[in-house]
Amino acid sequence: MNLVNKEYHRRARVLLENWQDSRGVSTGFEVSTDKSLATIIELNLLGADASISEVNKLCKFAREHGLAGIGVNPVHVERCIQTLGDDVPIGTVIGFPLGANHPQIKVAEAELAVKHGARSLSMVLNIGLLKTSNFQEVFEELRAVRYACPDADLIVILETALLEPLQIIIACMLSREAGADAVMTSTGFSSMGATPEDVSLMRSVLGDDLDVVASGGITDSDSIVGLLKAGASRLTIGFSSTDDTLSGLIKYAD
Amino acid sequence: MNLVNKEYHRRARVLLENWQDSRGVSTGFEVSTDKSLATIIELNLLGADASISEVNKLCKFAREHGLAGIGVNPVHVERCIQTLGDDVPIGTVIGFPLGANHPQIKVAEAELAVKHGARSLSMVLNIGLLKTSNFQEVFEELRAVRYACPDADLIVILETALLEPLQIIIACMLSREAGADAVMTSTGFSSMGATPEDVSLMRSVLGDDLDVVASGGITDSDSIVGLLKAGASRLTIGFSSTDDTLSGLIKYAD
Repeated sequence: MNLVNKEYHRRARVLLENWQDSRGVSTGFEVSTDKSLATIIELNLLGADASISEVNKLCKFAREHGLAGIGVNPVHVERCIQTLGDDVPIGTVIGFPLGANHPQIKVAEAELAVKHGARSLSMVLNIGLLKTSNFQEVFEELRAVRYACPDADLIVILETALLEPLQIIIACMLSREAGADAVMTSTGFSSMGATPEDVSLMRSVLGDDLDVVASGGITDSDSIVGLLKAGASRLTIGFSSTDDTLSGLIKYAD
Repeated sequence: MNLVNKEYHRRARVLLENWQDSRGVSTGFEVSTDKSLATIIELNLLGADASISEVNKLCKFAREHGLAGIGVNPVHVERCIQTLGDDVPIGTVIGFPLGANHPQIKVAEAELAVKHGARSLSMVLNIGLLKTSNFQEVFEELRAVRYACPDADLIVILETALLEPLQIIIACMLSREAGADAVMTSTGFSSMGATPEDVSLMRSVLGDDLDVVASGGITDSDSIVGLLKAGASRLTIGFSSTDDTLSGLIKYAD
């Protein structure tokens, strides 16, 4: 392992110990109730078989409920822009959901999405390289997308289900250093979604600098409250699971 | 639905009826035992968290066993070429596993992979558009990749788990018309992998024109025999499940 990697590991171990020592103590992160939760919720529809009519339903739903945004696969971005215009911010995914595309392709995919009108880019970092401690390559890829799309809301997806705590910490450090706006727990396509524990760890590393986006397997208002208390500042929910979740949410927000 | 789509549906219904009438009758496709099964087996390592050392192990294994090829995520193609040279054909995936990237990005990803030395491209077709009967868009995307990479072995992944029989038939027709070399059942990332029934249906549409590649969830020699008898001419197996499968296979081939 080279010196830079050693330094990342050293700093990550310190942060992990600090986080472990403070467990059970409030993160100091308050759940805001002075605005509708809808304003921090993004609805995603990312299934391989999402049909055009489902995409249209998502657009209609998002506009009616004043949601923070929607997330669709890249092939649907232009369609959603035609439907929604500027009414609801449209986001898409980059290198999704495996994160193992070539960096040049992630950059090209991000540039094209922004050209088509996407305002936020949820990009999966290269998980295999992170786990192999190739931090420099992971960082350079994040920075390349950041440079290519300076005005987009850049969210780095970690896929916490596949990572050890030290790897989650280092991924947060790399995302911040690369200039990301937010770090997201999960793609929703792995073995597990967001947990309060992972969210709390991510928040402890990032302080108030970046948004922590909880995503994956969020299906009821209790889990939403738990994730917000742990430090999540944004939530991404799958459109298929919306009916109950949204009702629960609205009830909670009242 | 426009006239072209109606014609596709009409032809697909006829093919489905013919296939249903001939069920139980041999497809006339014989399982060849005059050559090692290794020559029709490709080993894949496509997990998001595949590490560099696992990729290296895959390369070593493929060379030792004389396999037909390996499949890795795009970010690993150059690495595998450095390790294997021309010893084992290296394949990669395009628009994987959701198939919902923008067509321009699928083309760019395919071109870059070929430039890096990939000899086969397993490309996921746009499942959502197929299910919405946008056959023209599905076809044009396949053809664009075919034109961009005329010398590559182009395999179209259908993700049969998400498709109705008529959709499987039409996907096979579109793949053949676009000039693909093979049609594959599954990504291995959906709810189900290859079944003898789907393989038999694909073979009945394609005749001897294209290879039918069975993939996803293949973990024992019994299922391999069943898929070959149903009409599969190539097999793709996940590297993680190799140990037992390969032993079983070698036993079967003896």
